Amino acid sequence: MEIEPIAYFRSPLSGKFGLPRQAGLASELEGYVEFCPRFRREEALRGLEGFDYLWLIWGFHLNAGSPSQLTVRPPRLGGNKKIGVFASRSPFRPNGLGLSSVRIEEVAPERALLRVSGADLADGTPIYDIKPYVAYADAHPEARSGFVDSSTWESLESVETSLCPSEAKLWDCFSEKDRAAIKELILQDPRPAYHSDSTREYHIVYKDKDLSFRIQGSKATIISIKAI
Amino acid sequence: MEIEPIAYFRSPLSGKFGLPRQAGLASELEGYVEFCPRFRREEALRGLEGFDYLWLIWGFHLNAGSPSQLTVRPPRLGGNKKIGVFASRSPFRPNGLGLSSVRIEEVAPERALLRVSGADLADGTPIYDIKPYVAYADAHPEARSGFVDSSTWESLESVETSLCPSEAKLWDCFSEKDRAAIKELILQDPRPAYHSDSTREYHIVYKDKDLSFRIQGSKATIISIKAI
Repeated sequence: MEIEPIAYFRSPLSGKFGLPRQAGLASELEGYVEFCPRFRREEALRGLEGFDYLWLIWGFHLNAGSPSQLTVRPPRLGGNKKIGVFASRSPFRPNGLGLSSVRIEEVAPERALLRVSGADLADGTPIYDIKPYVAYADAHPEARSGFVDSSTWESLESVETSLCPSEAKLWDCFSEKDRAAIKELILQDPRPAYHSDSTREYHIVYKDKDLSFRIQGSKATIISIKAI
Repeated sequence: MEIEPIAYFRSPLSGKFGLPRQAGLASELEGYVEFCPRFRREEALRGLEGFDYLWLIWGFHLNAGSPSQLTVRPPRLGGNKKIGVFASRSPFRPNGLGLSSVRIEEVAPERALLRVSGADLADGTPIYDIKPYVAYADAHPEARSGFVDSSTWESLESVETSLCPSEAKLWDCFSEKDRAAIKELILQDPRPAYHSDSTREYHIVYKDKDLSFRIQGSKATIISIKAI
């Protein structure tokens, strides 16, 4: 079956590193849906105002190629235990489709505007379908979630900045919302599970800035911000 | 993007009429996932035992053709109000992808067996992806669900049988589970919203039997069962 993008996601995050590991983890992170011309019409979104969440079905475009392996090693299990691909949300899957429920922040059908928060999609991700979240059919709050229940992420405790004056200005130029989103993204501890080198520098590209940070114990420090 | 079925759904229901209007509405209705040979392997399902629900991403194969209209008329609104396609779960959508959360009844990776309940997929539906249901990311029980919240389905009150002796035997040959599923399907009132003719006969094909029934007020009566 041939499917075509109906839209592309626009996010402050363009790379894979630092992306939330699942939808909803970074609730401050906002993005929007940029519709392809054919769907950029008032009619297409009519009625979506009454919903709090929607589903995005999208393509793992940063993980090209159809993998032949039927197992994956979820980062949550330390990367050393194999799980069936259909028991995991891994991007490495037979058909590279992602699924995310995101919160609707603003919908203005007459401008074809759809702004959402909590997405785990990188900038430029192709979107193949949008469906409203229907609680009676989609919400199972008591559902057991396998290895996801029993192996929690260790979040960090704090994110501080230690910047030279000129870079501190760049930090201050971010909106309050952006600063909160960046801190939330780093607090999730985006490092691979097996990393614990406190001298190592990690990079997140957020909007047009490259931020680098280090992590020592449960504290992260943003040490540099550069315009790119 | 080209996607290929990884499996096909096997349901007692083969037609569109009588299918639950959404996943979870007919909890007694069981079906199973028949994997394509490449994925009929123990590894693919390993770890799914720990989950209660899973997502199926599937194709609306009974609604062929890519519709050019951006609005749909949901049956729930009586079929006379137009809603944007992205504000609805209608099968008539740009990319014909369906999304359903179903309960896992039995998973036996070593036999590539996956039995589920509550699916709204017809027999033979192609499945493009299976993902575990992860409550922390997928469950939003308090989410407002637009027109779905404010316009409830009228369920019927009872389903009885009025059959000649030979057809009553056919009814008795169904398992208790099958009889419960059939009653549940009819109780949902599968008629189009604008039908109210109590002499009209409706048909559901369940497994290898054609059942016909009539509805008067809030009572349904199964009046005939024929082997097909």
